[in-house]
Amino acid sequence: MRKLGIHSFVWTDGGTQAGLEEAMEKSAACGYRLIELAYLRPEKFDLDRLGKKARSLDLEIAVTMGLPFGADVSNPDPAVAKAGEELLANAVAAVRDIGGTKLGGILYSAHGKYATMPSDRGRKNSIAAIAKTADIAKKAGVQLVLEIVNRFETNLLNTTAQGLDFIKATGSDYVTLHLDTFHMNIEEANPAAAIRLAGDKIGYFHIGESNRGYLGDGVIDFDRAFDALLDIGYDRDITFESFSSTIVDQGLSLACAIWRDTWTENVPLATHAKAFIEQKLAEAVRRRTTNARP
Amino acid sequence: MRKLGIHSFVWTDGGTQAGLEEAMEKSAACGYRLIELAYLRPEKFDLDRLGKKARSLDLEIAVTMGLPFGADVSNPDPAVAKAGEELLANAVAAVRDIGGTKLGGILYSAHGKYATMPSDRGRKNSIAAIAKTADIAKKAGVQLVLEIVNRFETNLLNTTAQGLDFIKATGSDYVTLHLDTFHMNIEEANPAAAIRLAGDKIGYFHIGESNRGYLGDGVIDFDRAFDALLDIGYDRDITFESFSSTIVDQGLSLACAIWRDTWTENVPLATHAKAFIEQKLAEAVRRRTTNARP
Amino acid sequence: MRKLGIHSFVWTDGGTQAGLEEAMEKSAACGYRLIELAYLRPEKFDLDRLGKKARSLDLEIAVTMGLPFGADVSNPDPAVAKAGEELLANAVAAVRDIGGTKLGGILYSAHGKYATMPSDRGRKNSIAAIAKTADIAKKAGVQLVLEIVNRFETNLLNTTAQGLDFIKATGSDYVTLHLDTFHMNIEEANPAAAIRLAGDKIGYFHIGESNRGYLGDGVIDFDRAFDALLDIGYDRDITFESFSSTIVDQGLSLACAIWRDTWTENVPLATHAKAFIEQKLAEAVRRRTTNARP
Amino acid sequence: MRKLGIHSFVWTDGGTQAGLEEAMEKSAACGYRLIELAYLRPEKFDLDRLGKKARSLDLEIAVTMGLPFGADVSNPDPAVAKAGEELLANAVAAVRDIGGTKLGGILYSAHGKYATMPSDRGRKNSIAAIAKTADIAKKAGVQLVLEIVNRFETNLLNTTAQGLDFIKATGSDYVTLHLDTFHMNIEEANPAAAIRLAGDKIGYFHIGESNRGYLGDGVIDFDRAFDALLDIGYDRDITFESFSSTIVDQGLSLACAIWRDTWTENVPLATHAKAFIEQKLAEAVRRRTTNARP
Repeated sequence: MRKLGIHSFVWTDGGTQAGLEEAMEKSAACGYRLIELAYLRPEKFDLDRLGKKARSLDLEIAVTMGLPFGADVSNPDPAVAKAGEELLANAVAAVRDIGGTKLGGILYSAHGKYATMPSDRGRKNSIAAIAKTADIAKKAGVQLVLEIVNRFETNLLNTTAQGLDFIKATGSDYVTLHLDTFHMNIEEANPAAAIRLAGDKIGYFHIGESNRGYLGDGVIDFDRAFDALLDIGYDRDITFESFSSTIVDQGLSLACAIWRDTWTENVPLATHAKAFIEQKLAEAVRRRTTNARP
Repeated sequence: MRKLGIHSFVWTDGGTQAGLEEAMEKSAACGYRLIELAYLRPEKFDLDRLGKKARSLDLEIAVTMGLPFGADVSNPDPAVAKAGEELLANAVAAVRDIGGTKLGGILYSAHGKYATMPSDRGRKNSIAAIAKTADIAKKAGVQLVLEIVNRFETNLLNTTAQGLDFIKATGSDYVTLHLDTFHMNIEEANPAAAIRLAGDKIGYFHIGESNRGYLGDGVIDFDRAFDALLDIGYDRDITFESFSSTIVDQGLSLACAIWRDTWTENVPLATHAKAFIEQKLAEAVRRRTTNARP
Repeated sequence: MRKLGIHSFVWTDGGTQAGLEEAMEKSAACGYRLIELAYLRPEKFDLDRLGKKARSLDLEIAVTMGLPFGADVSNPDPAVAKAGEELLANAVAAVRDIGGTKLGGILYSAHGKYATMPSDRGRKNSIAAIAKTADIAKKAGVQLVLEIVNRFETNLLNTTAQGLDFIKATGSDYVTLHLDTFHMNIEEANPAAAIRLAGDKIGYFHIGESNRGYLGDGVIDFDRAFDALLDIGYDRDITFESFSSTIVDQGLSLACAIWRDTWTENVPLATHAKAFIEQKLAEAVRRRTTNARP
Repeated sequence: MRKLGIHSFVWTDGGTQAGLEEAMEKSAACGYRLIELAYLRPEKFDLDRLGKKARSLDLEIAVTMGLPFGADVSNPDPAVAKAGEELLANAVAAVRDIGGTKLGGILYSAHGKYATMPSDRGRKNSIAAIAKTADIAKKAGVQLVLEIVNRFETNLLNTTAQGLDFIKATGSDYVTLHLDTFHMNIEEANPAAAIRLAGDKIGYFHIGESNRGYLGDGVIDFDRAFDALLDIGYDRDITFESFSSTIVDQGLSLACAIWRDTWTENVPLATHAKAFIEQKLAEAVRRRTTNARP
C-alpha cells in the first residue's frame, strides 16, 4: 500500500468549500494521507485553494464520480454519450487542476439503478469514450480507474472479469480497475480470486464493509482480501469508504441507497478504520511470512 | 424444514398459464414440494386450474410480490397507500383462491430503488395497512410474511431488527418475517445472529447466493445460516431462489437488476440447489449432534 | 470480560523467581491485568513475594497446570489417582497462598499424549478427585476451572460437551470449564456453538491461535468466538496464550510439542495480542448492537 | 483430480487379509477408485492376492505409513536411521509388489509424539535417507510422497514450507509432498496459501475434517482448499481419511489419538464423503468459471 485514504463523504456532504477544507483537516488529523473527493464543479469550488490546502496537509487527492443518466457514455444515443465524454474531459481537467492523482468511480456509465438491460451499442459508446478519456487523462498526468460496482449502481460492469474485458476492449494500457470490497461482496463468486485475477490491472482499491458501516460490522472476509492484495504485490492506494444517513449528500446518498445511520460520530469511525486496515494488513504480511518460512 | 421450495422464476417469466403449469411440473420433477409464484392477476390466469395442478403434484404454493410505486402502502399520500391496501387484499384473496399457504415479499412498500428517504408518515401508513391485511389474511387462512430486502429494493425494512420492530408496531401476532440470505448478506452485521434474534418470528426463509446464481458460487456462509436455523428450531418452509438473465420477467428482472446470466440451464441448477440445501442441512444437524454429544 | 490476562510462558520458562517477577512487570507494562502462571512448587519459589509483586502491579494471578502421569487422577490405579489428588490439594493451597483467584488446566488427567484409551475406572477416579478438590478449592476461595484440551494432550476431556457431562458427574456446582480456542479448533464441530452450549459454565477462557503463534496467524474465526461469548454474557477473565520455541520450558514445551519459533520477540507479540483482542471484542459488541438496532 | 480414494482404516483395522479384501470391495462399492493401505508386512499378507483383488475392482493402491521410533531415519543415531532406511526400502518393494502407485505418510521421521526437539544431525540423516529411498522408489516406479503432519505426530515437518525446504535439500526431483487438510488446520497460517505455495510439488492430497470425523463436522474451509487446488492445476489423487474409535488399529489409533467415536457406521460416512468432495470440487470449478467470465 502506498497511501491510506478516506472518502470525504465520511466528513461532509461536499456542499461547501469550508466543508471540504475541514474534511481535509480531519482526514489528516486522523492520520490518513489521501482524501477522496466526489466530482467537483469548478464553478462552485475554489479548486486551487483546495489543492493548496491538501498539499499543506501532505494529503493526496483522488476524485471519484458517477455519470448522470443525462450524460451517460453507455447510452446508445450518441448525443447522450457525447455529453458524457465532455463531462469526463472536464473532470480530468478538474483533477489535474486540483493537483489530484487519479479519477475513479463509475466513469463508464451512469451511477444509478438502470431500468434497462445494457446494450451492445451503449457498450461500444462507453468503450470509445473511455479510450478517448484515457488519452486525455494520460496527457494530464491523471490516472484513470474504473470502479466495478454492484448491479444496483450500474448495469454495465459488475464484476472484475467484465472490467478486465472492458479495459482490454479500450485498447489502452493506461486504464486500470478500481475494486471495492462492498461491491465485490455482492457480485464476485470469490472476491479474493477476483483480486488475483485482476493482478496489476488494479489501480485503486476501496475498503468498505458489507453494510457500508464500521469495518468488522458485516460479513466481508478482509483477511482473504488482504492476503490476495499481497499475492499480487498491490502497492497502490487503499481508501476507506463508509456511508451513513448522518451525512447526507443528495446525489450520492440516494444513488447509494443510504437509509440508515450505521454510525453518527465520524472521528471514532475514521480512527477505527485506520487501525483496522493497518492491523489487518500487518497480519496479512505476517501470515504470508509465516506460511513461507521453513 | 417442512417443505423445500423453488421460485418459479427459475423456470419461467410467469407470463403464461402454460409456463406456470410447466414450472410446477419441473419443480415437482426435481423433487421440490413447494413452488413460489409471483403475484398472479386473477384476470390473466386460471387460478383454479393452477391450484388443481399444484395439488395433483403435491406441491404447496407460496406467493410473493412487491408493491408497485403507484400502490405503495408506505407512501405518505393516503390515496397511494389506500391503493396498496386494496392490492394486498386482492392478493390475499388470490392466494386463498389458488389454495396457497402464504403471501410474502415486499408487501410493506414498493419493490424498487427509492429516490427518497423513508418518512414517518409513510411508515405509519405501512404499519396500518399491514395490520389490516393481517386480519384479512388470518380470516382467509393465508400466512402473511414480510420479506426483509436490501436497500436497493426498498427503503423501509432492510434488516431483521427493523422487521421485528415493524411487526411489533402492527400489534398483530399473525405477521411474521420472511428472511433471505441474499439480502442479509448485504444488510446484516451478522446474518446468523439475525436469524437467532428473529427466532420464531421467522415465517418463511429464502436461500439465495450472494450473486443470485448457483449456491456455492458466492460468499454466503450457509453453514452458519443452517446452524442458526437449527438453533431456533425453524420448522417452516425453505425456498431456493436464483435469477439469471436467461429468464426475463420484465418487472422482476429489472427490480432485481438481473443483467447477467449466472446460469443458462435451469434443471441442473435446480437439481444442484436441492442437493446443496439438503446436504448442508444434514451437515448442520450432524454438527449440532456432534457438538452436544459427551 | 473482567480482566485481560497473558500466560507467563510468553515471557519466561518459569524456572527462576527473578524470571517470574520480570514476567509480571512486562505483563503489567503491556497493559495486561492478569498473569497466568504454571504450577509453582512452594519449595522452589517465594510465593509470598510473588503474590506481593502481583498486587503491587495490580495483576490478578491465575495458575494452570497439567498433572504428570505419575500423579494422574484418571489413572485406574487408586494409588496413582491418590497421588494426583494430593498434588491438586497442594496446588489449591499454593494458589491461595500466592493470592491467586483460580486454578485451571488439565487437572482431571495427565497432561500429555496418552498411550491408552480412557477407562471407566479411571474416569470415576477422576470425577471423585475433582469433586473432592472442588470442596477444598471452595473453602480456599480458589475457583476450579477444567481446561478442555485436544486429543494429543489428554484422552479424557477433548470437547465442551464431554466437559459439561464431567462436571455434572462431579455433583459440584463449583467446578466450571476452561475453554481455549486453540483446542476447540481441533476438537469442536462448531466452536462458537460449543461456547453457547456451555453458557455460564465457562469459568475461564483462553485465546490462542491455531498454530499457537501470533493472533491472526492462523485459521481461527475469532469473530464468531467473540460473538458467542457475548451471546452468553461471558464476563469472566480472558487470557492470551502463545508458545514459541524461543522460550523453552522443558515440561510445557514438550507436552505442547513446540518445535518452531512462531515468534522471537515477545513484547511486540503481547502488544499485538492485547490490541487484537480488544479490537475484536469491541467489534463484536458493535456488531451485536448494530444487529439488534431497528 | 485423477482418482478419489479412501483410507482403508474407515473399513478395517487392517489386521487380516480378509479385512483388507472386504475394505477393497466396500471402497469400490461406494464408488472410490483408490484405496489407501497402511504399511503391509509381506510376511503377514498375501500381497499378490491383494494386488489382484484391487485390479479386479479397478482400484488403485496407495500405501502410507509412519516409521516406528526404533527405525526413525531422523534419529541422530546412525544405527537407528539405518534401520529406518531399510524399512523404507522394504516398503517401496512391498508397494511395487502389490502393484501400488505411491508410498506416502511420515517417511522422514517416526510417527508419534516426540519427547525431544528435532536435531540437525537427525534432520541430515533423514534427508540422506529420503534421497536414497527416492532413487529406489524411482527405479521401482513408486511415487514417494512425504506427508506433512501436525506437531503431535512428528517434530520434523509440520508445515508445507518446511516440507518444500526438505525436499529441496534431498536434491531429488522425484520426491513430492503429501498435504492433508486436518494437519494444515493445526499448522498452517493459511492453508489455501500453503497449497498455492507448494504448487506442483504436491503429489498427493488428503481430505480430512478438523476432528477427523464426518466432512462438514468441523471448522475446515474446504471451499478455499479446493479453490487453491484448482489454482495450481492439481490433477493427482485425492483421498478421504477419517478415524473413529469404532475401528481400532492399535498402532494407528494410538498414534493419532483416536479416543472418540465420531461415527459408528462407515458406509454412510464413505458415501457422504464422496458426495461432499465431488460437490465441493464441482462448486469450486463453477466458482472459478463464474469469476473469470466477462
